[in-house]
Parts: sequence; C-alpha cells; structure tokens
Amino acid sequence: MNFTVDFEPIGLRFLCEEPLTISAAACLAGVSLKSECRGRASCGKCKIRVHGSGLSPITQAENEHLSENQLAEGWRLACRTVVSQDVSIYVPVTSRVTAQVFQIDSEIGGVPPTSLVRVLPIKVTPPSLDDQLADLERLAIVLKQEHTIENLWAGLPALKSLRTALREGDWQITVALRGEEVIATYPSSIPTLVGLAVDVGTTKLAFYLVDLSTGQTLATKGVMNPQIAYGEDVMSRLGAAMVDQMNALRLQMEVIQVIDAVAEELCLSRGLTKTHLLDICLVGNTAMHHLLLGLPTRPLAVIPFVPALTAPIGIYADQLGLASAPGAQAYLPPPIAGFIGSDHLAFLLAAGFGEDTRIKLGIDIGTNTEIALQVGEEIVSCSTASGPAFEGAHISHGMRAALGAIERVKISQDGTVHFDVIGDEPALGICGSGILDVLAELRSAGIINLRGRLNPDKPGVRSQNGRLLNFVLVSAIDGRREIMITQEDIDQILLAKGAIRAGIDILMDYLNVSQDDIDEVVIAGAFGTNLDPCNAVRIGLLPNLPVDRVNALGNAAGAGARMMLVSSKARKHAVSLAKKIGYLELTVYPDFNKYFANAVRLPQPLL
Amino acid sequence: MNFTVDFEPIGLRFLCEEPLTISAAACLAGVSLKSECRGRASCGKCKIRVHGSGLSPITQAENEHLSENQLAEGWRLACRTVVSQDVSIYVPVTSRVTAQVFQIDSEIGGVPPTSLVRVLPIKVTPPSLDDQLADLERLAIVLKQEHTIENLWAGLPALKSLRTALREGDWQITVALRGEEVIATYPSSIPTLVGLAVDVGTTKLAFYLVDLSTGQTLATKGVMNPQIAYGEDVMSRLGAAMVDQMNALRLQMEVIQVIDAVAEELCLSRGLTKTHLLDICLVGNTAMHHLLLGLPTRPLAVIPFVPALTAPIGIYADQLGLASAPGAQAYLPPPIAGFIGSDHLAFLLAAGFGEDTRIKLGIDIGTNTEIALQVGEEIVSCSTASGPAFEGAHISHGMRAALGAIERVKISQDGTVHFDVIGDEPALGICGSGILDVLAELRSAGIINLRGRLNPDKPGVRSQNGRLLNFVLVSAIDGRREIMITQEDIDQILLAKGAIRAGIDILMDYLNVSQDDIDEVVIAGAFGTNLDPCNAVRIGLLPNLPVDRVNALGNAAGAGARMMLVSSKARKHAVSLAKKIGYLELTVYPDFNKYFANAVRLPQPLL
Repeated sequence: MNFTVDFEPIGLRFLCEEPLTISAAACLAGVSLKSECRGRASCGKCKIRVHGSGLSPITQAENEHLSENQLAEGWRLACRTVVSQDVSIYVPVTSRVTAQVFQIDSEIGGVPPTSLVRVLPIKVTPPSLDDQLADLERLAIVLKQEHTIENLWAGLPALKSLRTALREGDWQITVALRGEEVIATYPSSIPTLVGLAVDVGTTKLAFYLVDLSTGQTLATKGVMNPQIAYGEDVMSRLGAAMVDQMNALRLQMEVIQVIDAVAEELCLSRGLTKTHLLDICLVGNTAMHHLLLGLPTRPLAVIPFVPALTAPIGIYADQLGLASAPGAQAYLPPPIAGFIGSDHLAFLLAAGFGEDTRIKLGIDIGTNTEIALQVGEEIVSCSTASGPAFEGAHISHGMRAALGAIERVKISQDGTVHFDVIGDEPALGICGSGILDVLAELRSAGIINLRGRLNPDKPGVRSQNGRLLNFVLVSAIDGRREIMITQEDIDQILLAKGAIRAGIDILMDYLNVSQDDIDEVVIAGAFGTNLDPCNAVRIGLLPNLPVDRVNALGNAAGAGARMMLVSSKARKHAVSLAKKIGYLELTVYPDFNKYFANAVRLPQPLL
Repeated sequence: MNFTVDFEPIGLRFLCEEPLTISAAACLAGVSLKSECRGRASCGKCKIRVHGSGLSPITQAENEHLSENQLAEGWRLACRTVVSQDVSIYVPVTSRVTAQVFQIDSEIGGVPPTSLVRVLPIKVTPPSLDDQLADLERLAIVLKQEHTIENLWAGLPALKSLRTALREGDWQITVALRGEEVIATYPSSIPTLVGLAVDVGTTKLAFYLVDLSTGQTLATKGVMNPQIAYGEDVMSRLGAAMVDQMNALRLQMEVIQVIDAVAEELCLSRGLTKTHLLDICLVGNTAMHHLLLGLPTRPLAVIPFVPALTAPIGIYADQLGLASAPGAQAYLPPPIAGFIGSDHLAFLLAAGFGEDTRIKLGIDIGTNTEIALQVGEEIVSCSTASGPAFEGAHISHGMRAALGAIERVKISQDGTVHFDVIGDEPALGICGSGILDVLAELRSAGIINLRGRLNPDKPGVRSQNGRLLNFVLVSAIDGRREIMITQEDIDQILLAKGAIRAGIDILMDYLNVSQDDIDEVVIAGAFGTNLDPCNAVRIGLLPNLPVDRVNALGNAAGAGARMMLVSSKARKHAVSLAKKIGYLELTVYPDFNKYFANAVRLPQPLL
C-alpha cells in the first residue's frame, strides 16, 4: 500500500506506506504545523484543507473548532484527520510554524542555497576535418570564453556522458559543474537541479529530495533500516560485522541498495531519473557512517572506540554503488567521535549551535542518545546507551508512534485512566510520549514511589499469577487485548531516563553550569516532537526548567543534512563546528555510577 | 614454456615464453647491446657471459671472435646465442651502448627520478580512553610534526588499509604518500617502491616494473594484445566496439585482465605483491586509450575522428579494475589526436623532441605509422595506415622477428641469394628487415623495375600455374617448404613504404624542409632496431640521407612511459610537448594522391 501526500503551496510530496494522521505525515515530511496542544485537538491551530478520498470521519473536536462552511470546504484539523489514499493538502500560512529557531520545512530556514553544483546551457561548434579538437577541449573553450572557467576537467564517467550528450544533443547541451569539474552533461535542458539528503538512522532512514537551486524539499520518504535483521542497536550491528567480513559487506550493501532504490522512487515521483541527482549528503551515527563506507568497524566496538576519521569525505556516488549523475559525489560530514556521529553534528547545525554563545542543551533521544551542552564558545557532547524504551520497544505493549498508539495519558488519584490515541482509533499499544506520560501520572497519583515501585495497595495495580505487579491502562473489551504497563516496563523506562539524565548532569558538572543557567533545551527526533515537556521535567528526564525553554525540532539531523546538501557555507560551518565540539566519555567520568544512580530515581512530585 | 633471463649487473629480469637470441631478449627487455653489424655476427661487439643450460651450440662466428679461454669462461656473442631455459647473463660495460641520444636501458637516460610517490616510516601513540583521536587525524599529527605535511587526506580504500595496518603494525607503519594523499599503508617496512609502465600496443603490450626511487627497471615482459581476436588493426577493433556495446566492454576487460595478470607476475618475480604497486603509467594509441578507459569510440572511427579528450588523466587503479596499492593511480598521458596517441608522445619524449630546435624526423613504424617532424620550435605529426607488411604479416612467407626468420638478404646479379637467419636455424620465413633487404636487392640486381614489377626474364623469377610471378629465396630441401616472395608481396610492401614516405614528404612540404636539412632521423619499434638504414634509403622508405643520421630507439614508447612513470618533471614536460605538437590530416592535404603515387615508386638505384 503506497500513496502520496502533497503539501501545497509548499510543493512537497511525501510518500506514505501506511495510514497516518496529517500531523504525523507533516512531521515526517518536515512540514512544521502549529500544535500548541501537542496533538490533543484542543488548540485548533493545525487547520488545513484537504482534497481526496479515503479520509477518516470528522471527529467531535473538529466539529467544535471548524464552522459548517469550513467543513464543507474541506477544512480539517491535521491532528485528527487520517489519510490512506493520494491526497492534496493545502497548508495556510496561519497554520505553519514560522518564528522558530529552525524550521523543519521545505524551505530550510535561514540557509540560502549556495549549492556546489551549477548548470549551464552550452552550444559548441561541431567538429570537422579542419577542426578535430577533442570533446573536452571543445567544451573547455566555450566555458572559458563565456563563463571564465579556467581549468575544466572531468572524471571518467562524466567524460563518457559528455561524448554521448554532445552528439545526441547536436552540439547543444546542458552542463552540470562542481567548481571546474564537469559532473554531468545532458543532451537537452533539465527540469530541476536536484540533490538527495539522507539521515541514515540505526532504525530508520529519512530521505529528502531537494531542489538545489531553491533549497526547496520536493519529496521525502522514511523507510526502515534493512540492517535491523542483524540486531536493533548499533552494538549488535558492529558485532555482526566483526563476526564475519561477509556480514560487514552485507550490512553495507543492504543500506546502499535501499538508498539507491528510494532515490530512484523519489526522482520518479517528480518526473526525474537518477541521472538528474547531482549531489548527495549522508549523515548518520559513526557506526552507520563506517558500515556505509565499508570502513573496518572493529575499533569502534572495542575500547577505546576509535573512528577511522573525523574529517569530512566526498566520494563519487558510483564508487559507493549509488546511481546518480556521472560525477556526482556523496558528501559525508565529519563524525565527531566513536559514539557521536555526523547526525549529531547535523542536529547541532540545524539547532544553531556555534552561532551564538547562549547556554544551550541539545538532546537527540534514540537507542543511543547524544547530548550536547554549549556554554559560550565551548561545546561538549556525550553519548549514552539509553536503549529503545522511549521508542516503545522492549515495553510489554509498546509500539511506535503510529495509528492506534496511545500518545497522551492522564491518570486520576483513583486510578482512572484517560488517554488519546493517534487517529482516534481503538488503542493497540502505547508509544514513547504516552509511556513518558504514564510514568509522570503514576508518580503524581502516588501509584509508584521514588524508585518506581508499583504500590500493590493502589487502585489499578495488580499481580498476575504471582508475577511482578502491573497497572492496567486499557481493559480487554470487544475481544481486543488489554493494555498494561508492568513493573519491568517501568524499570526499563527509568534506566533509559537515568542514562539520559546522568549524561545531562555530567555535562553540566563538567562545564560548571546549573540548571537555572540553561537558556534553551532543543530536543530532536520524532519522540521530541510528541513529548510533553512538563512530564519530561516531572519524571526528571530534563532538569527542572520552565517548559517554554524546551523546543522540539523534529528530524533535526535530516534538516541539517539538507542544509549541508544545498549550501557550501553550511558545509564549511559544520566542519568548523565539528572541530569545536569536544567529546566526553561518560563511563570514565569521576563518580559516573553515583550520577547514574541518582538519575534513575524519580523526583519529588512538582504538581 | 616460461623462463627468465636475468641481466647482470643491471639487475633486470625478463620473462620469456619462447626460445630467442640473447640479442632479441636484450632488445625486448630494453637493454641496449652494441651491434655495429646489426646482428650479422661480424662486428663481435655484443660479447656477454652466460650461465645456465639450454643454450644453442657455439657457432663458427663465435669461434672466430672469442678466444678458447673466453669460450671456456662462458663468453658468447649475444646475436648468436639462443636461450630456452632460466639463465643469468653478465653484460660488461664494453658491450653496452652508452652514448646514445636515449638509452633504452634499466636506468632511463637523463631522467633523474622525481617520483610523485614517497614512503615514510611512521610511529604513532596508541589511542586510549583518554585519547580517542581517529586513525587519520592521529597519523596527520605525526606527518605534520615530523614531515611538515599540512592537509593530509585519504581516499576510501587507503583509509581502510590505514585502519588495518595501524593495528597489525602495532602503531608503527610504513606510509606511502602522493602529495598530501595517503595512498597505501603497510604494517611493516616495504622492500622496494615500485611502479608499472605499460605500452599498450595494438599488437603487443610491453610491461616494465620500475623502482620508483632509482628509476631502475626491475622486470619486463611483452605479451600479445588479447584484443587481436577482434581484428589485427585499430579500425577493426573500433568496428567491433561499434557493433555492440558488450564488445566494447569485452575489449576493455580483456586488456585490463592481461595488465592485471602481468602486473602480478612481474611483482611476484621480484618477491612483491600487487599491493606494492604505487604508481602506473599507461601509453597507447588513441583507440587503445579510449577502449582501455571505456570511452565511446565511435567518433574515433568516423569522420572527423575526434577524441574524447587530449588532456592527461589520472584514475584510481581500482576504478579501472587494476589491483594495486589502495590509492595508486593509473596515469594516462595526453593523446594528441584521433590517430596520434600517447605512445607517439612517449616516443617523442624519449627521443628528446622539444628539447632542442634541430630538424628531426621521428618515425614509429607499425600497422599505423606515426611520423613527426620537428623544425625549430614547431612539431607536426601525422598518421598513415601503412598496414602490417613490415611486421611480416600479409606476406606469403612473412613472419615476425623470431627464431628461424630471415633477417638479412643479399642477392647477386645472377639471382643467387645469401641470407642470415635469426638463431642460425633453418629458415622458416622472412621478417620485416629481411623483406626490406629483399626489395632493395631485387632492385639493385635489376630483377624488379621502378614500379616493383618482377622481370620474368631475370634469373630466379618464375610463374607458377599461370599465377603471378614470384622469386624464390630458399628452395625446398630436406622436406622443408620453399620460401619465396611474390609479386603480390612486393605490391604490399610498396604500398606500405609509399604510405610512410608520402607522410614524410607531406610533412617536409608543410614545414618547408628539404631532405638535406634533416639533422636526424629517429626510428622507433623493433623493426627500426633491425632495419638496415642503407636499404631503407635505397628503396625510398627514407629520404636520401647519410645513414649515420639514422638512429634506432627500440621500444621508445615504453621508454617514454617509464620516464613519465618515475618523473613528475617528465610528465609536465610531456604535457607541454603534447600542446606543441600540431596534427596534420594527410588525406585532406592538397595533392595527397600525387604524393602517394610518387612515394610508392622505387628510386633509381644508388649503388
């Protein structure tokens, strides 16, 4: 099942594989919609107009927020409308977030495109027996005369394409250049100058097809990382690669094949072919970076976790096995350290780190969570193995933030549970933001104590067959399964939040910062977008800060990747930013265990 | 059947596949032996001492030129000793040519090596949890501190090798650099710094394994071009490539596989592996150049015969499918025009064109013959399709210059034939230099007229079964076949010499030079080495010049390739030389047909 969601007038096409709310689609596609209530349908700010069939029925919340006329015209709330077939969505300016630090948007906020690639229409004199000049030299003369390009050259694949294009185009062609290098030639004009940015995540790959001349994102897609068959986390991937060199090659090839296939799909969705792809920017954690390049990964997996390089690298895409314009390069921004990758750099770039001297905390929550703290001119990052609990994995009824996931939870003192489900569907499980809410609410209601122990005397808490205690969120009705949270789940979540919070506390100690000094917290990732910052503070995931200092950036790594794709200035800035970022190895920090033990605990209730 | 011939004290190893005279082996291996009699065993200058078995018996000529003591010590004449098993040959200084324009020798005359590649032993501090610097950056620090190398970088294959070598070598490695680029790393020291030069001929490939630090040639080999299955000349190869893209790919792959295999063989013969190959220089005609690179060849085969580029190109060897040091490049010097390749450039470089302003004529005789005329600062080259007659092909009893080939011929007025055979064996056929002699002698004896017609009234001339006339060189005795030259053979030879001479005459006309102005004629190729310059003048192949102005250079293209392999200065010089060389298209020259018709005729007898 495949369908497209077009966002207008932005001109962005998003490829979907399963039904989802327009809010979710917008978030994944990188279109920032207003959502003051964070998806609870209470603020009514995410109004959009939608055309197409296969939409979910109008909800009560929409009847309250929209007039009859508006509903008749096709206006809906993005957070309450589920799409499952091709649709076109009109996003009015009033529903878009504009004045944010950074816009995860089709126009990349604040980055005017200064693409490394440019395209010129060229006409040359045809050769004759009196003028047997070679193809490349014939082109060089015109480019020197008309565009003052001095030392024109071309690699082998571009030379082949030039030879064919000149004759097919009857000596009138379109030339794509990177500096003085010919990277592609076409026998006619080309519709758009496009590039591809990919955030290669351990779990998911996020793709962005971008117009290099305007910076506009033309199409996006997210797919699962096929390496997942070798294990869910980075360490099991590295382990698989260590066992057997063939495995390492397979891990590399599977990701490359997926990138190649999705690149083609996105190009085709815009009436282009892969030969139009003129530039590529790939970000990812250091393990993904090394596996993708086929660099030996063993030293990343064993102490002292040393990467092969922390410099940026540009590789001809065909050398990596990626079809594209003949001389197109894949640019991989610098990794920072063994456990801090170029995705973290892209996040910090998108979040404006290094652009001012405010005290800023940046957190990218995932199976591995990277945390950066900026204090004046100094930036220090660390990485912590937080596990997949906040992604809904390894939790009894956990699931990712998809249709049917409980994303908001309220629990009264008497144990009554109120919840919101994505798509207003029957609840199937609970996703990261819901899990975080559950913990905060259980604590507020006094159902768990400071160490997260369920109190068997509280309403809703029970033990089954002598096993550990659990708390029922949704009872089994109409033959659907019961949804509960177990003591084991709570322990998992506390370990995850403890790992993250310990990292934050150690960075603050290392740079001598107290929680009141922090001007801003930026949280990346889908989890950050859905998370209720109040509850993040209530369970102690974040330091005790006013919640208006907390900003969610969505897929900030993907945004940073797009910035580096379209802007040579952004690449330069990112390289100097990377040199500024210090890496702190948490496990050897004095009293690490004490920090961790403290961080696992829940704070005293605030509200 | 494979055996090796070691030339000492030069230290050159030559790999043979069939029995041949030591003179022939020396010539093929690029060792210049004195030979004033041009292989007639009359000058006695090619004395060498040989150790090993499988040598041909001592000849009468050797008994005359060598004392009993010398014979007992193993002294022989190189032109009379055939080797067929592993031997070691001592070449005394007195037997070597030293004061020539250019030395086709293990030390490349006048070119001090200024290799682009250098090798450094490096020791780095091992990483630890307190020092997690990446591999490349760790190396960069030491290279900056100890060798003032500023912006160290590495391509992907070299990065992989670095990662492994650092750990295998326990943080003490050998690093090979091209400028600021790491091209290879070894976990221990390496015995020799080697590169490979290849002259990719239409018929034959000549290989030279060279020590990049001394310029010394370490091993050589010649093998047939496997593309010969697609046709003997350049045009049939281009035709095959045009018919079918798969053919073009096959033509490319077959040559690459041969280069790869011989590279390995030569490396192994010196106790090295291909990972030690740090640089490669490939020369060849423009068709070979394009086929090797996989560039579309159609425009080379049709008017106006335009090449893809006339710039030099450096390609990572692994991109071409050649195994070598991870970051080694294959350097392909610039082709001059569609029918003038980088082999011609290499020849002119080796022959010192562009180094003085004398009037010099350079001729490389082959199926296609390239001719260059230098007058002052000006150099003009042309190409002419002379066919394979001078290589012994398409001649009734023609053969190449191998064991059993008639290489010298004398014919008396009465038709009696005297001849010399390579290796003093029974005659099997006649090679290029013999064919040229036959023509000159038949003319002197008045057996053929100005137009090459055999006179049926002259002794030795006969007609068989009403067919065209022929002249018997060797009668059928002892059951061996008769060897003769037919009227058709003579016509073939006259067309070949006409094509070459017309080219020379047109260049002289174009640059306004008369034959007396010419200071020097340099002839490249094996044919040039065996040819009797007197007879070349007598049949009108060359203008009427004193024969001491004629010099043979052997495989000059291979020599030029070696110069460009070991010397960055030679590369620069060759590129500026290439820009100087004008190309003259003969077929559109005014009165071309008249020049050709004149050139086909034989001159009046001189002697």
